[in-house]
Amino acid sequence: MDKVKRNERLAAMSQILTSSPNRIFTLSFFCELFSTAKSTVSEDVAILQDTMTQFRLGRLETVTGAAGGVRYRPIGLAAYGRDFIQKICDKLLEPGRQLPGGYLYFSDILSAPELVHGMGSLIASQYYDVGADFVLTMETKGIPVALMTANALRVPLIIARHATKVYEGSAVNISYVTGNGNIETMALSRRAVKEGQRALIVDDFMRGGGTARGMIELMKEFNVTVAGICFVLALESPKKRLVEGEKSLMLLSDMRDGEPLRVRPADWIEP
Amino acid sequence: MDKVKRNERLAAMSQILTSSPNRIFTLSFFCELFSTAKSTVSEDVAILQDTMTQFRLGRLETVTGAAGGVRYRPIGLAAYGRDFIQKICDKLLEPGRQLPGGYLYFSDILSAPELVHGMGSLIASQYYDVGADFVLTMETKGIPVALMTANALRVPLIIARHATKVYEGSAVNISYVTGNGNIETMALSRRAVKEGQRALIVDDFMRGGGTARGMIELMKEFNVTVAGICFVLALESPKKRLVEGEKSLMLLSDMRDGEPLRVRPADWIEP
Repeated sequence: MDKVKRNERLAAMSQILTSSPNRIFTLSFFCELFSTAKSTVSEDVAILQDTMTQFRLGRLETVTGAAGGVRYRPIGLAAYGRDFIQKICDKLLEPGRQLPGGYLYFSDILSAPELVHGMGSLIASQYYDVGADFVLTMETKGIPVALMTANALRVPLIIARHATKVYEGSAVNISYVTGNGNIETMALSRRAVKEGQRALIVDDFMRGGGTARGMIELMKEFNVTVAGICFVLALESPKKRLVEGEKSLMLLSDMRDGEPLRVRPADWIEP
Repeated sequence: MDKVKRNERLAAMSQILTSSPNRIFTLSFFCELFSTAKSTVSEDVAILQDTMTQFRLGRLETVTGAAGGVRYRPIGLAAYGRDFIQKICDKLLEPGRQLPGGYLYFSDILSAPELVHGMGSLIASQYYDVGADFVLTMETKGIPVALMTANALRVPLIIARHATKVYEGSAVNISYVTGNGNIETMALSRRAVKEGQRALIVDDFMRGGGTARGMIELMKEFNVTVAGICFVLALESPKKRLVEGEKSLMLLSDMRDGEPLRVRPADWIEP
């Protein structure tokens, strides 16, 4: 193979690192790939770090120690700041989204890849330091955002189901009270998680936190610690709040008949 | 801003293009971002193309015409070839995955971000030319792979539900017969898709194609054409096959009691 130029090395490293967020690549990996010296790769990494910072494309971190190397985290991206979330808020206010019974249609937003990619990265950026072993969500609507969060954190996604399925093997079932006051069931395969792990809960909507409360109870059955809870959208002032310490990307004013909807980005989201 | 060096431009362009697969970026976009001339950006693109090809990191395509520019497609990646799928086949054969009733536990594989990212890219690589307007899946297990496929194609993901939900608005419901012979219901919000669109169906498992047949019927109700069908895993020789023209990533030999399982990558998957 011809000698690989710095230009080419940087282009390739950029693709490799950013397409596997939070995965640590050793410098030796790149030395072998490019047949080049460690000192050269170190210089490449420094240039890449500066470029990521300059254009707000994420953070490239060097990790020291035996398992050391370099990893990419989609933190502080120019593309996924307050403007990005504000645009989603504006979408939520489009005419026709308010349904009978005080419901809001936003299934389309929750499964638009470029939006959930951004929302997942933004959520992940808040939880790199909590040591989550997996992301937990409850089927169905929160799955895409939860998956993109898990992808950015490089941890598995675990999906709780409404009922035990034969193809999930033996399962733990619990009952919980939803935000509407209904009693529902939540099930999770016994083999899905391990005792002593830490969970990050990600879900689409918090009315009062009933479903999230259910997920917390479910995690207790597995002796799993809840390390964080984040919603795409949360009611700003619920009558009854069943969880605490939660975050959300957007806050929704109480949906009362006749009053116009208000949705805004959460305060923690930086410009 | 200081003049941006070619090194830095290539590193940034690589991140920007590959993190938004199938999105066309105009050359002007990069000219403005880097305050540089179009001829310079054209040279950058040529270098980036060569690098992507050399290291099998995907395909960078220039698109001519009024809406022209450059786009990245995750096609032919070294990381997601036959070896990648073979490793997933090996995982499926791990002890303890066979459940009573001839079921196979692979929910963990279907929601492991790095695996579904690869599987989704691989599926998408086969359907760039069919003009799909969206990816359709049926809740729940196929959602992660379907989302990653939609992400690579840059089209929305549409999720059919088992039942109409109040927060989805008015919906179309159909009944279908599953691979097990059960009659189930499938529902899709009326506003989710538009008449005349083209759907790519992506689902986790094909036993005989009952659920896929249901999705095809559902699309007929919306006057939507099915442009392709792809499964993660399909039974190699189903007793009764209800769909045709489908692809899958992996083929499973018939699960008979006592016989060892056999799973292999589909023939179309290149080394």
